[in-house]
Amino acid sequence: MRQDIQALLSERQTQICARLEALDGAAAFTVDPWQHAGGGGGVTRILERGRCFEKAGVNLSNVWGPVPEGASAMFRAKAGTDLSGGEFFVSSLSLVIHPQNPMVPIVHANYRYFEISAAGRTEPIWWFGGGTDLTPSYLFEEDVRFYHQAYRAACDRRDREFYPRFKAWCDDYFFIRHRGERRGTGGIFFDDLTASSPGKLFPLIEDCTQAICDVYVPIVRRRSTTPFDDRHKRWQDLRRGRYVEFNLMYDRGTTFGLRTGGRVESILMSLPPTARWGYTVNPEPGSPEAELMEVLVRPREWA
Amino acid sequence: MRQDIQALLSERQTQICARLEALDGAAAFTVDPWQHAGGGGGVTRILERGRCFEKAGVNLSNVWGPVPEGASAMFRAKAGTDLSGGEFFVSSLSLVIHPQNPMVPIVHANYRYFEISAAGRTEPIWWFGGGTDLTPSYLFEEDVRFYHQAYRAACDRRDREFYPRFKAWCDDYFFIRHRGERRGTGGIFFDDLTASSPGKLFPLIEDCTQAICDVYVPIVRRRSTTPFDDRHKRWQDLRRGRYVEFNLMYDRGTTFGLRTGGRVESILMSLPPTARWGYTVNPEPGSPEAELMEVLVRPREWA
Repeated sequence: MRQDIQALLSERQTQICARLEALDGAAAFTVDPWQHAGGGGGVTRILERGRCFEKAGVNLSNVWGPVPEGASAMFRAKAGTDLSGGEFFVSSLSLVIHPQNPMVPIVHANYRYFEISAAGRTEPIWWFGGGTDLTPSYLFEEDVRFYHQAYRAACDRRDREFYPRFKAWCDDYFFIRHRGERRGTGGIFFDDLTASSPGKLFPLIEDCTQAICDVYVPIVRRRSTTPFDDRHKRWQDLRRGRYVEFNLMYDRGTTFGLRTGGRVESILMSLPPTARWGYTVNPEPGSPEAELMEVLVRPREWA
Repeated sequence: MRQDIQALLSERQTQICARLEALDGAAAFTVDPWQHAGGGGGVTRILERGRCFEKAGVNLSNVWGPVPEGASAMFRAKAGTDLSGGEFFVSSLSLVIHPQNPMVPIVHANYRYFEISAAGRTEPIWWFGGGTDLTPSYLFEEDVRFYHQAYRAACDRRDREFYPRFKAWCDDYFFIRHRGERRGTGGIFFDDLTASSPGKLFPLIEDCTQAICDVYVPIVRRRSTTPFDDRHKRWQDLRRGRYVEFNLMYDRGTTFGLRTGGRVESILMSLPPTARWGYTVNPEPGSPEAELMEVLVRPREWA
């Protein structure tokens, strides 16, 4: 599985960057390879100041080594056994795309395969984690339905219990507790996903990573020529501020990664190019901004 | 002490807002009184989109009630005894000022008095906490020296051990661990400060809160007419991004306040009006931006 997942995620990174570049038509992805002190490394690819995309990051990591200090408690909880002296392996693809046009939603996706080998065990412990979520500044129900329907279809092909479970998990996970609102209109989220063998879940990851562009590109095409003005851009920046609040305060990948010596720039590539904070900004009742807030406070079923 | 500190901090809030308003000359502070569910309340005063100040917040809180769920462990550690069923009281003044001109530093100050009464004790446990720190986007050594010298003088009047201790504590506290840099050029920071009676430390708080404008206003006057362009504004926004990283990830007032049901808007008034993130932004060696980074990575003695 280690080789299969690395090959898949690497191929997906190339393919996704090519499609986004073609769509943008102005800017290109840089290629920044890096090494991990313990073992392995990754490639961070960034596109900035494009025509469609203000900032897009697609990061591939294949990292291994001794279980880091700050991580052993989490791994022990997952494994139900002591893993001191264990070795971990993780292969992960993550991306966050911040569009220029406030009518185009932010998209995030991350899929990862984890393995831990402990001293006294013959078989490694393994699991998949991941998901994707959509963060619009303005609500186009058609886009959100299209997005959720596509991921429902990808999940249903493998297990009809997946989508309802992963959709609810996503609403729970991307919750900005102190604000009482979700960061966006959700998607799917799962962790600790395991089965009789990794090969059983591999097709889910194949389909979900294939869906990233298949689902997002049509949404970008549909909205990226919609006119906007300073008011829309201002609201987009306020919503990006909430994205920052979520990522820095609640996102486990971010907080865990920074605590365990992960590569700072690759982790924080998820942050928006710009953000804004105002004091008690409350959208006018009935405004498009208020309409978005309603679905962030009370998540809906979209598919 | 409860009455004395409330009277002092309330008077300071009025005085500080009046001086900043006069200096700004264009925008005024709003007055937003609020109630705390447990008991007490506060007044949050905000000035936005001024001539000098892009966003300035000055918050006064006088809050009491049963020790909140998420706080009992911290209070127990401080008191060295079980405080379940205890009552707390806190009086606090905090301010953060985000100037328009990138040549003018951000200033932050917070001074607070805490009391906890536990069931089995006749005397409450009490302490003072607080401090102030300066966050320039561009380094003017003259300003940083002036600022540190003033706070050294305020500390020295009470105890000559205070400034060296509080200055080092400040450099330790305002450390963005994952970046390996401080958020600014420091100042003073202290917590759990106690003595034979609260009255012994009250003059320190009187002097430090009086110094807030006495020290900052001359710096603002000196720098706020310096010309700047998009490059400077862009760098200011990048530094503001680091300010956000510190506040949301490391600042105990922020994380603790949000966890224990503090008033979100009053806590997050510290966030800058705008911020920016880029991928691996490294200032040119020898540039003014690189000069700032040096003192953030290796703090200096300024007074």
